[in-house]
Amino acid sequence: MDYQAVLDEVAAYARPFVRQGEVADYIPALERVSPDRFGIALVDIDGSVYGAGDWETPFSVQSISKTFSLALVMAHAHDDEIWSRVGREPSGTPFNSLVQLEWENGIPRNPFINAGALVVTDRLQTLTGDASTTMLHFLREESGNEDLAFDQAVADSEADHGDRNAALAHFMASFGNLENPVPSVIEHYFWQCSIEMSCRDLATAGGFLARHGLRTDGSRLLEAREAKRINAVMLTCGTYDAAGEFAYRVGLPAKSGVGGGILAVVPGRCTLCVWSPGLDRRGNSVAGAAALDHFTTLTGWSVF
Amino acid sequence: MDYQAVLDEVAAYARPFVRQGEVADYIPALERVSPDRFGIALVDIDGSVYGAGDWETPFSVQSISKTFSLALVMAHAHDDEIWSRVGREPSGTPFNSLVQLEWENGIPRNPFINAGALVVTDRLQTLTGDASTTMLHFLREESGNEDLAFDQAVADSEADHGDRNAALAHFMASFGNLENPVPSVIEHYFWQCSIEMSCRDLATAGGFLARHGLRTDGSRLLEAREAKRINAVMLTCGTYDAAGEFAYRVGLPAKSGVGGGILAVVPGRCTLCVWSPGLDRRGNSVAGAAALDHFTTLTGWSVF
Amino acid sequence: MDYQAVLDEVAAYARPFVRQGEVADYIPALERVSPDRFGIALVDIDGSVYGAGDWETPFSVQSISKTFSLALVMAHAHDDEIWSRVGREPSGTPFNSLVQLEWENGIPRNPFINAGALVVTDRLQTLTGDASTTMLHFLREESGNEDLAFDQAVADSEADHGDRNAALAHFMASFGNLENPVPSVIEHYFWQCSIEMSCRDLATAGGFLARHGLRTDGSRLLEAREAKRINAVMLTCGTYDAAGEFAYRVGLPAKSGVGGGILAVVPGRCTLCVWSPGLDRRGNSVAGAAALDHFTTLTGWSVF
Amino acid sequence: MDYQAVLDEVAAYARPFVRQGEVADYIPALERVSPDRFGIALVDIDGSVYGAGDWETPFSVQSISKTFSLALVMAHAHDDEIWSRVGREPSGTPFNSLVQLEWENGIPRNPFINAGALVVTDRLQTLTGDASTTMLHFLREESGNEDLAFDQAVADSEADHGDRNAALAHFMASFGNLENPVPSVIEHYFWQCSIEMSCRDLATAGGFLARHGLRTDGSRLLEAREAKRINAVMLTCGTYDAAGEFAYRVGLPAKSGVGGGILAVVPGRCTLCVWSPGLDRRGNSVAGAAALDHFTTLTGWSVF
Repeated sequence: MDYQAVLDEVAAYARPFVRQGEVADYIPALERVSPDRFGIALVDIDGSVYGAGDWETPFSVQSISKTFSLALVMAHAHDDEIWSRVGREPSGTPFNSLVQLEWENGIPRNPFINAGALVVTDRLQTLTGDASTTMLHFLREESGNEDLAFDQAVADSEADHGDRNAALAHFMASFGNLENPVPSVIEHYFWQCSIEMSCRDLATAGGFLARHGLRTDGSRLLEAREAKRINAVMLTCGTYDAAGEFAYRVGLPAKSGVGGGILAVVPGRCTLCVWSPGLDRRGNSVAGAAALDHFTTLTGWSVF
Repeated sequence: MDYQAVLDEVAAYARPFVRQGEVADYIPALERVSPDRFGIALVDIDGSVYGAGDWETPFSVQSISKTFSLALVMAHAHDDEIWSRVGREPSGTPFNSLVQLEWENGIPRNPFINAGALVVTDRLQTLTGDASTTMLHFLREESGNEDLAFDQAVADSEADHGDRNAALAHFMASFGNLENPVPSVIEHYFWQCSIEMSCRDLATAGGFLARHGLRTDGSRLLEAREAKRINAVMLTCGTYDAAGEFAYRVGLPAKSGVGGGILAVVPGRCTLCVWSPGLDRRGNSVAGAAALDHFTTLTGWSVF
Repeated sequence: MDYQAVLDEVAAYARPFVRQGEVADYIPALERVSPDRFGIALVDIDGSVYGAGDWETPFSVQSISKTFSLALVMAHAHDDEIWSRVGREPSGTPFNSLVQLEWENGIPRNPFINAGALVVTDRLQTLTGDASTTMLHFLREESGNEDLAFDQAVADSEADHGDRNAALAHFMASFGNLENPVPSVIEHYFWQCSIEMSCRDLATAGGFLARHGLRTDGSRLLEAREAKRINAVMLTCGTYDAAGEFAYRVGLPAKSGVGGGILAVVPGRCTLCVWSPGLDRRGNSVAGAAALDHFTTLTGWSVF
Repeated sequence: MDYQAVLDEVAAYARPFVRQGEVADYIPALERVSPDRFGIALVDIDGSVYGAGDWETPFSVQSISKTFSLALVMAHAHDDEIWSRVGREPSGTPFNSLVQLEWENGIPRNPFINAGALVVTDRLQTLTGDASTTMLHFLREESGNEDLAFDQAVADSEADHGDRNAALAHFMASFGNLENPVPSVIEHYFWQCSIEMSCRDLATAGGFLARHGLRTDGSRLLEAREAKRINAVMLTCGTYDAAGEFAYRVGLPAKSGVGGGILAVVPGRCTLCVWSPGLDRRGNSVAGAAALDHFTTLTGWSVF
């Protein structure tokens, strides 16, 4: 398949969707991003890289980092301990809801809503002693981009507007579901979200998900079944309260972030990352979802 | 691949799980089934049939019928009208909950919870004039088994214990989300659930889902994208409030019923049907789920 | 105290509030009532009657009947059996919500939300064999108005638009919390709601609540503690999800109906009934609430 | 009426209920209190004081302080500003629930659940610059007991176990419903709860509620209508999710605390304070509620 031709056609298809939706405005650092941006990258399982549009422009990864923190917890502790503290069911509620958390006694429904990601970050902190630095080093290695860094302005801005996440963390702590102090967990969580990466960086770094657990250098990060299971959680829970819709339209495991990025996986074939800042009301990139929809239509590579 | 050998190994693996869980007891007709039964059938996309255990014993299809009513609505009206009346998101609540329905103004979250299936049945009734007979004839043709029939005792028993479903239907009617009279919709719904089929029958009849929309006789029931989308809804919503867990462990589109059956799809390859009456607390067959889990472990054929 | 002067002043005060709010429009029979009507009646514990405005015009009692069905159940069975099937806590949710009912396994929060009133009607049906006729005869006797009657058009209209109440009844039946068939319970419930009475009729018929259980003819309907307890339930639950607001502003036990009537009690002194069809968003008469607010301001007769 | 004889009889009646229920154990400082204690005090509106049992033993006022913080906010700002930030409806949920707060956008249902009391404390902090010291000085003056003090061990212990309250406060801050920094609001809230007072102290200090707003020294703290309205909120919301039950059984405005105290008001007559540490599952003193139930039975002084 001529990947470059496919990406070019996808980019042309997605163009009219750019500027649809709303750029995330809950923190100033995100609000300033131009809504006109669109980029897409594809990395084959042999490491070949293709791209179109603003595919080399860094943006804030935000919730896409949740995929990597889950993978790192599984890589550091090949056991099911984490699953006693967080579920793997779609939430049926917005990503930052407290309602479900109260009903289910402080156990978040899955690792990709904020509450679940806080638990995963807490676990990674316990396992490594420094959750955010561990992730940054991992992303540098897997992407091959040593310039990756936290964005201090974004992390500070998140903290300034972080009352909802603080509420989630204190609430889980009240149920005994955090191992580390609330301020520390929140801080590492915000640092992870603040990392800036391009579509190229993310599609490359996520390659282990398409390679059934093998890292960029060929070494094994995760067992094949572990990597498949992360893909399963991405498909059922990766796009907030639109996972069913996303599976229906696109049919690929994917994780979105409010920075406008979406990381998607075609198991055994490739990873994709698409970016456009305009979000729909559920927090997913409008042009990004349209691009992935068209990609699976062109290639027939939905998992279904 | 030697399908028969795989099924035999799967059946041996699943045997210790038989008798785990509880046989559905909310209606006497289901309660009488022996908990010792276990069967599994596999039908290749070319129509070759394999089986192990009680794979030719008929059982009550119950909620597996929801897959066929959705397919029939899509086949009779290739439009998105149904999706304005029912969502396609996982529910995050038990299959017969009214809470979500109230929050979302009478629009069920997906076609595989009871409320959603009532809407689909209502739509099929409008499109065909006789929803349950339409389904029965379709299942006879696709399975090649002309003996398929409604089980009057089961349908009557459901009606006798049908207050919860009546509540769901009246509740949706109060929001204007039913086109036909409540008693008629409920009756057709119960008739559909009461059909008795074996694993062989179900795996054969569901073959269009693995063949991207082609019927047993090679004619087209659904567009390829339509068939893929039913698979997507099965994966995200097909096993009640355990869809995330099922995707994680098994990784195949599947639809379960409280009769103990589970219909699963390996897109492009085959359909499977497994049956064992003991249910876990979420309503899915314990031995059935274990069997499918082992099947994907042996074959590597999870979609992820 | 010069009751007539007080009522005249209250009526003048309330006049600007008439036509505020919306006339109930969920059934045509209610929708046709002129929004301009306003009446108020006061009946002293010695039986003296005072009135102003449209105080002798009949209107649909609707939910005010819930007070009388509760009193009749307590009068027919001086035990706590009913309280095992319905609570006495404010609901915190709209009057016809199913959410709470699901959380609390089919036990309605109190006898004045629809679900609770259906249970009370069901109990009265069991105790008397004819719940609605029992109530009609009681109201005729206590009001001294032999012309009181069901309004067939209203009852039929309620039934035509009764899917929500049917859902509530079937839902409770699914939890085993109804003794009689759903259609029978609903029918008696609608008949009770359809009775037409004037402010004069209602204030007279409710006199036993101010007289600590003594009927119009001096005989005892309820023990003093029973009558006081009905007043307590009226104060905490009698005005839908505005009971706290009503206690704060008015400070009297009261029960409202969507016909625009409100029956209020000054324990040991008098009963009041006010009527004006325009309702606020919680279903209480706007001018009626304003009138009672002004009445307690003028007299100082809040219970607090 | 011979108050002393009534109190003695009430104390005898309540004795068998002492040791029923569970002493609050969420903080060690409360857990250490003996479950055998029982005291009751009555203060007439002319200031005469009566008591029985352990009526002069100090205990932790806990949520009873919520009554005084509301009164102080109303006394410092005779306007309705506070009611735009907190409702006055019964909650229908436990005292520390976050569910309702999410549904209603950060506006707590009433000032007597924890979230509402945090808002009231926040407002008092803004109005006075030192919410907890303002309350302590007020309670010293009204009780005439200059020895009243914060219990540092209790306040520290609350803070150590304060994740749920921190979650509530951060959650409301995320909706913009706090004026002061979260840590400051929580700290003042915990100090207020930690004050130690006896039944005598509390019944004396709460006298303004029975005197329609007049302080111990005869000066006016609140307008009569303001004092009545606090009584109304106490009756509908003062005993957590048992307010309806409490109104039904006791029929007096009352505010309970998990220290085992209950402050009750007979408007125009007297205040009562009862104390016994064993709590029912809703957080109200078992023997305390029984004592007040018997008091209104003996005197007939329910407000209904």
